[in-house]
Amino acid sequence: MIDKVIGRLEESREEAVERLKELLRFPSVSADPERKEDIAKTAAWLAAGMERAGLAAEVDATDGNPIVYGERLDHPGGATILIYGHYDVQPPDPLDEWESEPFEPVVKDGKIFGRGASDDKGQLLTHLLAVEAWIAEAGELPINVKFILEGEEEVSSVNLPAYLRANREKLSCDAVVVSDTGQFAPGMPAITYGLKGLTYHEIRVEGPSADLHSGSFGGTIANPVNVLSRMIAKMRDEDGRVLIPGFYDDVADLADWEKKEFASIPFDEEEYREMTGSPALFGEKGYTTIERRWARPTFDVNGIWGGYQGDGAKTIIPARAGAKVSMRLVPNQDPEKIGRLFNEFVKQIAPEGVRVEVIDMSGGKPLLVSTDTPWFEKASSAIEKAFGRRPFLIREGGSIPITQEFKEVLGVDTLLLGWGQNDDRIHSPNERFDLGDFHKGTLASAYLIGLLGG
Amino acid sequence: MIDKVIGRLEESREEAVERLKELLRFPSVSADPERKEDIAKTAAWLAAGMERAGLAAEVDATDGNPIVYGERLDHPGGATILIYGHYDVQPPDPLDEWESEPFEPVVKDGKIFGRGASDDKGQLLTHLLAVEAWIAEAGELPINVKFILEGEEEVSSVNLPAYLRANREKLSCDAVVVSDTGQFAPGMPAITYGLKGLTYHEIRVEGPSADLHSGSFGGTIANPVNVLSRMIAKMRDEDGRVLIPGFYDDVADLADWEKKEFASIPFDEEEYREMTGSPALFGEKGYTTIERRWARPTFDVNGIWGGYQGDGAKTIIPARAGAKVSMRLVPNQDPEKIGRLFNEFVKQIAPEGVRVEVIDMSGGKPLLVSTDTPWFEKASSAIEKAFGRRPFLIREGGSIPITQEFKEVLGVDTLLLGWGQNDDRIHSPNERFDLGDFHKGTLASAYLIGLLGG
Repeated sequence: MIDKVIGRLEESREEAVERLKELLRFPSVSADPERKEDIAKTAAWLAAGMERAGLAAEVDATDGNPIVYGERLDHPGGATILIYGHYDVQPPDPLDEWESEPFEPVVKDGKIFGRGASDDKGQLLTHLLAVEAWIAEAGELPINVKFILEGEEEVSSVNLPAYLRANREKLSCDAVVVSDTGQFAPGMPAITYGLKGLTYHEIRVEGPSADLHSGSFGGTIANPVNVLSRMIAKMRDEDGRVLIPGFYDDVADLADWEKKEFASIPFDEEEYREMTGSPALFGEKGYTTIERRWARPTFDVNGIWGGYQGDGAKTIIPARAGAKVSMRLVPNQDPEKIGRLFNEFVKQIAPEGVRVEVIDMSGGKPLLVSTDTPWFEKASSAIEKAFGRRPFLIREGGSIPITQEFKEVLGVDTLLLGWGQNDDRIHSPNERFDLGDFHKGTLASAYLIGLLGG
Repeated sequence: MIDKVIGRLEESREEAVERLKELLRFPSVSADPERKEDIAKTAAWLAAGMERAGLAAEVDATDGNPIVYGERLDHPGGATILIYGHYDVQPPDPLDEWESEPFEPVVKDGKIFGRGASDDKGQLLTHLLAVEAWIAEAGELPINVKFILEGEEEVSSVNLPAYLRANREKLSCDAVVVSDTGQFAPGMPAITYGLKGLTYHEIRVEGPSADLHSGSFGGTIANPVNVLSRMIAKMRDEDGRVLIPGFYDDVADLADWEKKEFASIPFDEEEYREMTGSPALFGEKGYTTIERRWARPTFDVNGIWGGYQGDGAKTIIPARAGAKVSMRLVPNQDPEKIGRLFNEFVKQIAPEGVRVEVIDMSGGKPLLVSTDTPWFEKASSAIEKAFGRRPFLIREGGSIPITQEFKEVLGVDTLLLGWGQNDDRIHSPNERFDLGDFHKGTLASAYLIGLLGG
């Protein structure tokens, strides 16, 4: 049967790309309140797609964007996987750096360009296509499959946890499958067994009640931008090591097998550097680049503002300044604890000439998935069949906070089977997804369903 | 004779206010290209006023707005002052914050409200009224007087330097008189004998070629905002002392008489702090607040930007960051030299993980006028006679670049005799000028002409 399913998927490659284009045309930007209607249309499109595939589907309202749920339970009491994805996307800004329209996908050199191509519309669609092919060929699925597609992943999955808790029974499963990560590199498939956690904050610094003339008042009142810069400088050292007291207390060292696995991965530092466009690599001493990416915590400013940003010169002491900062966390750091340490440190270093406020924005725990389970082994085999090579076991610097929720609420591990590439430019202009990866990912999903069905 | 002149001015106070109202009704906004005609009308009105007073006047075209020149040279080879003022005004925005029409002056509580009331129409008119009274009473002036009134001061006096150079002979004089500054406070007249200089730069920091996911790339490439913050933090210490090597090398210490003069000024720190709205005053240790304001160089960030500035959380390593920074300079710092030191320091502290560029934007030399000249002494006496109190000798944290031009091109010092107040709201809605100050300023100008004439 699997051969027929695979054959069907091979034959419908072009149709699959058209389906992806349809999905990418929805500007489902969850951060933009103007896009509520587009979000609703995207959800409706996905539910219709599930129905068409042969699943029972529903669009479930939440306090924010709807969650699309679908299921096909052909084997009462049998093995069940829950496939998670997100249909919302990052804002497309800065718009003028896109070479094509962010919401009018185009194919070029075997890649599809558009916001959400890789993160996560292109990846989630592979599973829907695999399920559709299975049902079309076999009249049923060899295992029970549930889908949960949310519309708020890019705004911290605000309403997903409550939904999971409210629907614990409906969502019960043996494992969660998520394709929202990447391969290690082109031709090097991977399973991600570890993710970083996150704690995200906004710092606001206020000085004078209005912008003041920097000549008339300079040297007598604190400048909020200077203060903010100094505070940020105190957060980490020249090599990126975080200076917040207690920050490293709970950091778990890498196991020996992990160091070996990481070292076995063909990784070209210069190629990596070139991909980023940075003039040199950077980071904490004593760790390889891969170790820093995957297993060392970080502190980054994600945005900063204050005072005059226009053309020419304006000689003011700005009334206020602000920054968005985030820390990526590793096992066993706790985002709440680190967030607290951050707040305390800010208080400690805030000078008296300004008012400083911290707004805690979001957080998520780091994750480590057991690699010695049958689920993990079958996922490895499915990927090997589809991609022609056994996947590397890797970690990711990113966060998928909901994996932690799945563990806590549903009591199951998440298999992170990512079809993307590091240079897919997710969250950046000209986001893209390799159509070869799109296809192989679809095959891998079909193989996995087959293998799990025995 | 001076008594007659003063008597005449006392008697014509109301008429003087009407003349000021006429002048304030012209919306001579130099930043607004729609106001070219109003600018021309203002210049014509001023030339006519000079002719009426008894001067020879001309409206001299420039590449921008015209310069009104007038002269009365009754004493060939005798002492000559050049009175400078500007008839253009700041834009009146935000209009909805004005309590009366910006170009329909009204008098309330002894103050006249309207754009340009204090900056600089009300102040420049005092000199024209004084000259008119002198000629009316005496048939001539006791010294030679030249006027130069420009229409582009609020747009950086773009065409004035070329005009000065082209008319060096015509404008030759023994001293320039400018009333475009303020008294120290109500009832506390002042002569400003020192101004700060300026050097203004933009720093641009570039890292990756696009915004990158802070999870996937964190810990491996330098973050331009973190780098920029660290560089700014290295520019000055916790108390605002600048850390650029060589920055203080040429700073002239305050003379003992200056320290005493500054200390003699009734200055309420708490009142000043409250006016700024800052929670605490700030600045270099070892200096009083007035000393820091007027006589110590500063380093301020005027604006900063980089990465995500919108609502919510975006987890990126920004591709670039930038800041506008400026240093206020004191005698004998040279803006070109300090700009060079700044550039060198930036190069020195720029880490290898980013590309850093400095754009030099503008600069101006600091100014110190000799206070022990007969010109200065006579200006003090004139103010004492008019205001009933000897003027405080003060400095200003701001810059008036044309004073430097007068020094370089005409080879003379500028006497900054300001009749305004700090709370005249220049450049803001509801600009105003105290009519008592307007009148006393006119008397002071008349006294000065008399004293200079022996």
